[in-house]
Amino acid sequence: MNEELLSKGKAAKEAARVLSTLDTATKNRALEIIADTIEAEIPNIVAANQRDMQAGREAGMSEALLDRLKLGEARLRSIAADVRAVVSLPDPVGEEFDARRLPNGLQLSRRRVPIGVIGVIYESRPNVTIDISALCLKSGNAAILRGGKEAVHSNRALARAVQLGCQTAGLPAASAQLIESTDRSLVREMLRANGLIDMIIPRGGAGLHQFAIENASVPVITGGIGICHVYVDAAANLSQVIPIVVNAKVQRPSVCNAMDTLLVHRAVAAEILPAVANALAEKNVELRCEPEALSLLKDHPAAKAAGPDDFDTEFMALIAAIKVVDSLDDALEHIYRHGSRHTEAIITENYSAATRFVNQVDASAVMVNASTRFNDGGQFGLGAEVAISTQPLHARGPMGLRELTTYKWVVLGNGQIRP
Amino acid sequence: MNEELLSKGKAAKEAARVLSTLDTATKNRALEIIADTIEAEIPNIVAANQRDMQAGREAGMSEALLDRLKLGEARLRSIAADVRAVVSLPDPVGEEFDARRLPNGLQLSRRRVPIGVIGVIYESRPNVTIDISALCLKSGNAAILRGGKEAVHSNRALARAVQLGCQTAGLPAASAQLIESTDRSLVREMLRANGLIDMIIPRGGAGLHQFAIENASVPVITGGIGICHVYVDAAANLSQVIPIVVNAKVQRPSVCNAMDTLLVHRAVAAEILPAVANALAEKNVELRCEPEALSLLKDHPAAKAAGPDDFDTEFMALIAAIKVVDSLDDALEHIYRHGSRHTEAIITENYSAATRFVNQVDASAVMVNASTRFNDGGQFGLGAEVAISTQPLHARGPMGLRELTTYKWVVLGNGQIRP
Repeated sequence: MNEELLSKGKAAKEAARVLSTLDTATKNRALEIIADTIEAEIPNIVAANQRDMQAGREAGMSEALLDRLKLGEARLRSIAADVRAVVSLPDPVGEEFDARRLPNGLQLSRRRVPIGVIGVIYESRPNVTIDISALCLKSGNAAILRGGKEAVHSNRALARAVQLGCQTAGLPAASAQLIESTDRSLVREMLRANGLIDMIIPRGGAGLHQFAIENASVPVITGGIGICHVYVDAAANLSQVIPIVVNAKVQRPSVCNAMDTLLVHRAVAAEILPAVANALAEKNVELRCEPEALSLLKDHPAAKAAGPDDFDTEFMALIAAIKVVDSLDDALEHIYRHGSRHTEAIITENYSAATRFVNQVDASAVMVNASTRFNDGGQFGLGAEVAISTQPLHARGPMGLRELTTYKWVVLGNGQIRP
Repeated sequence: MNEELLSKGKAAKEAARVLSTLDTATKNRALEIIADTIEAEIPNIVAANQRDMQAGREAGMSEALLDRLKLGEARLRSIAADVRAVVSLPDPVGEEFDARRLPNGLQLSRRRVPIGVIGVIYESRPNVTIDISALCLKSGNAAILRGGKEAVHSNRALARAVQLGCQTAGLPAASAQLIESTDRSLVREMLRANGLIDMIIPRGGAGLHQFAIENASVPVITGGIGICHVYVDAAANLSQVIPIVVNAKVQRPSVCNAMDTLLVHRAVAAEILPAVANALAEKNVELRCEPEALSLLKDHPAAKAAGPDDFDTEFMALIAAIKVVDSLDDALEHIYRHGSRHTEAIITENYSAATRFVNQVDASAVMVNASTRFNDGGQFGLGAEVAISTQPLHARGPMGLRELTTYKWVVLGNGQIRP
């Protein structure tokens, strides 16, 4: 194993042992100190970031990516404020649940405990370095971070601030560590570092998630890929359709919970589709339509024929696929065949249609008469999220602090033996 | 992909879709019919089992293994009774939790849903075929079973009974399917059948678990390997020591929650260890002692010097490793270095020692003044278990019906969009 990974992995394991038993006040004090340290380190972090920005410009990085990479003073103060916001979140560690007394007098409960060492593999945005460190620390986990090459100086400076803060607070510096080598083979080694890393969260595009699934022996939480549908039922309240569809597509098109495909019941398609198309086109959305939808939108400047992959694509852009369906069953079947189990929504006033949609659609979040954009840790009141999981194990949908914990069974007896 | 696996995987996926929406009464009726069918099929199952027994005898299988393999009428009636017992367990599917109204009026909850298709890879005992089928069906999951080559005829006959029962009950026959090919490469293919299998549970020895960890791209639940400690504290109620230690070691030595290592605080070692050794020796337990324990047991016929691996071994037999420790800290350190995060117990009347042990030991179950043998789904009141997980993700310790589910977020709105 790579030496840096091995030594940092071992240090993380020891740090996790310390973090797992800290009380909430101690962890919160450390978070406050980390926030202060980030602010004190602003000049160093900005200088490091400028090296990354310079390298990015020289490498021809797009303005959009450069903007994601950039850390100015205002953004850093906002990052520090996010750390302080984690202070106010409830600490999940130590919560007991399913507590009961067994017939033999054993007092049994499940107690929430940290997972141990969380590995996170992420791309460009350097703020992830701080977000993950803060959430892992609050939930009593050590973090091993592997950021993108393009942000390496920024990430080092940010991780240094976290480590200074930890040390000032009397916590192990190894509570959050950055893998500094940018050797790509390290990603694969991290994914197979059983015994050192307990869980890996990839944060990035479909390629990274697929690579993690294929190569990991450490349990991974995958997700992030959202082919999300809004189905407009025959019994939709038509006044809700345009606000929800436009919000789901346009409010932030580059994220995983944005709508990709609009399904419209034939009974209302002729009435509502042209108005929906106008509203989307006004926001510069390109419409990729199957033949029936296209015929209803003929001559609409934003409408064109859908290609063979358009109903299986996460657009991450101002593009929507549109299809007319015969029935709720037809919509359910389309979602089953083309969805990615992320976020699915129905617009309907029909009780049975709403109930069937909620019962039968298998996705991390299923919505009635609401925008897909709500599938988000902040919106769901988790306070923050480390990822959105679309796989069924451990956690599904937005993962907050509680989803960074596991539990142990606590059994209190007075001499019981098994008959 | 192997054709049998591909076609059964696809059928399982379709079956899972049906099973996920069945109500509890329908699933219970199917379980009753399956139990009846097993009883009706007893002659066929016994005949099939005799082929396996014959082949096992010819291959020189040990009497112990032959006994595990054997299915007589009484055992089959007991297996049918176990299926009927699953009827009385609560159905976890549909339970809603963390339900609340968000400030914007969205009604949010997490709803328990089946995972989908559960793959189980197991060895000799054919009763697993029925146990897993019944628990998967009750929790709304389809099962793909891959049993051992030595039980192939028995497993086919049992799976046939389950499928007949499903068909009679109007459920898909593919609700529970046996992979009939005994080609070993199929295990690896199952572990990489993403998109067809949602979770894999290996049930077998350390070799199978390690193979699954190294080769799986489907999420696996690993566990089963228990290097379990009982620590006798300085403040132990000495009258509890012999019953708990003997029970933990002897009540069923071949299972994962049996005690492997006894740690005794120096302050009570001279007083209690000889009596403990006598009690264990009376049950034919061999004692492998580090030097200080050995010196306290010198001339004891059951005591011998521990070898270099004895404190890192899951014995699965009437053998115990014994060590004298200086302190609770010393015991905690030993468990941290040598434990397998399965089951750990302390015997003490000291409040702080009990509390520190519970807080600091990281294992699926931590016990005070009770036998390690209680870490079991039946004992914990889960009604049944499919596995004991020692990894931290998804579920830890005994896995019952609820641990065969995941959840989806349900969001009920009336037109909300994200600001």
